[in-house]
Amino acid sequence: MAKRKIEFTDYLHLSLKVLRETGHLLASLDKNGKPNVMAIGWGTIGIIWGKPIFVVLVRPSRYTFECIEHTGDFTVNVPTKWMKDIVTYCGTVSGRDHDKFAEKGLTAVPGKTVKSPIVAECAIHYECKVVHYNDIIPDHLPQSIISTAYPLGDFHRLYFGEILDAYADEDVESKLT
Amino acid sequence: MAKRKIEFTDYLHLSLKVLRETGHLLASLDKNGKPNVMAIGWGTIGIIWGKPIFVVLVRPSRYTFECIEHTGDFTVNVPTKWMKDIVTYCGTVSGRDHDKFAEKGLTAVPGKTVKSPIVAECAIHYECKVVHYNDIIPDHLPQSIISTAYPLGDFHRLYFGEILDAYADEDVESKLT
Repeated sequence: MAKRKIEFTDYLHLSLKVLRETGHLLASLDKNGKPNVMAIGWGTIGIIWGKPIFVVLVRPSRYTFECIEHTGDFTVNVPTKWMKDIVTYCGTVSGRDHDKFAEKGLTAVPGKTVKSPIVAECAIHYECKVVHYNDIIPDHLPQSIISTAYPLGDFHRLYFGEILDAYADEDVESKLT
Repeated sequence: MAKRKIEFTDYLHLSLKVLRETGHLLASLDKNGKPNVMAIGWGTIGIIWGKPIFVVLVRPSRYTFECIEHTGDFTVNVPTKWMKDIVTYCGTVSGRDHDKFAEKGLTAVPGKTVKSPIVAECAIHYECKVVHYNDIIPDHLPQSIISTAYPLGDFHRLYFGEILDAYADEDVESKLT
């Protein structure tokens, strides 16, 4: 499938609709060079420091956390409308003891600008290099969010990834809607 | 001008294109109940804690900083293509000694869900309540960003605003493109 370079703002209305309804796939590389992928339902995208930025939130308990700490980069991949079950599965098991790429027939293709791979079957890809990180501060959250999002106290690290490259399938719109 | 409720993801490709090329208007209310507005070129939008979130960055030296600290809310307004000079002006002078609404013929309309007003002449509006804040950590930034964005060491506070309401002009697309 031919993929072409896009502006990070292109298709953003579709990309974030998918994030909200299905989730995105956050791909990384572990210290042994093995591709890893997790599902995310949370994240923000925009511009900071004059750069296009994708902010992802990762709990320290996740395998992806180790991977991003090791490589300093990640990719965000927007799944097609046919990949919902795969996203659900990727949000259910850990890359510590599952090769989710192999189990779900996903293809890890090397990133063009980062060490982390992309998930080739997805329709949009954002290659991101961490330029800042920050941790959620429990004292700055309302109790309602702590109760629902952090019952185990596993507060997220926010990775601010500069989007070094963004590209999409030619027929991205029909694959997402 | 009739405005109608939208999903926060609607028109996001256009909204962030405007953020990148022109900027948005960040409106707030000061402790005396006077509307205040500044231009922003940086910010991110997405989903965190299951909520639609607009993250804005405000330097502690800005008048808007005092306002948001006081009210705990803000609005983000996407200017039309005819408002570029107004956005530039709003990024040049401070609300401490300028009534930018009066000087530029802008209309402050009370927010529906927040204390901060909207800028009626804009085409899209996001009403946001602060649910988290966090500060940029200098030690977690590359020197290149510190040199260009923080020559005076005036590091941003990040306000994570839950988007309580989003609405737009009926003819929003023709007003932005």
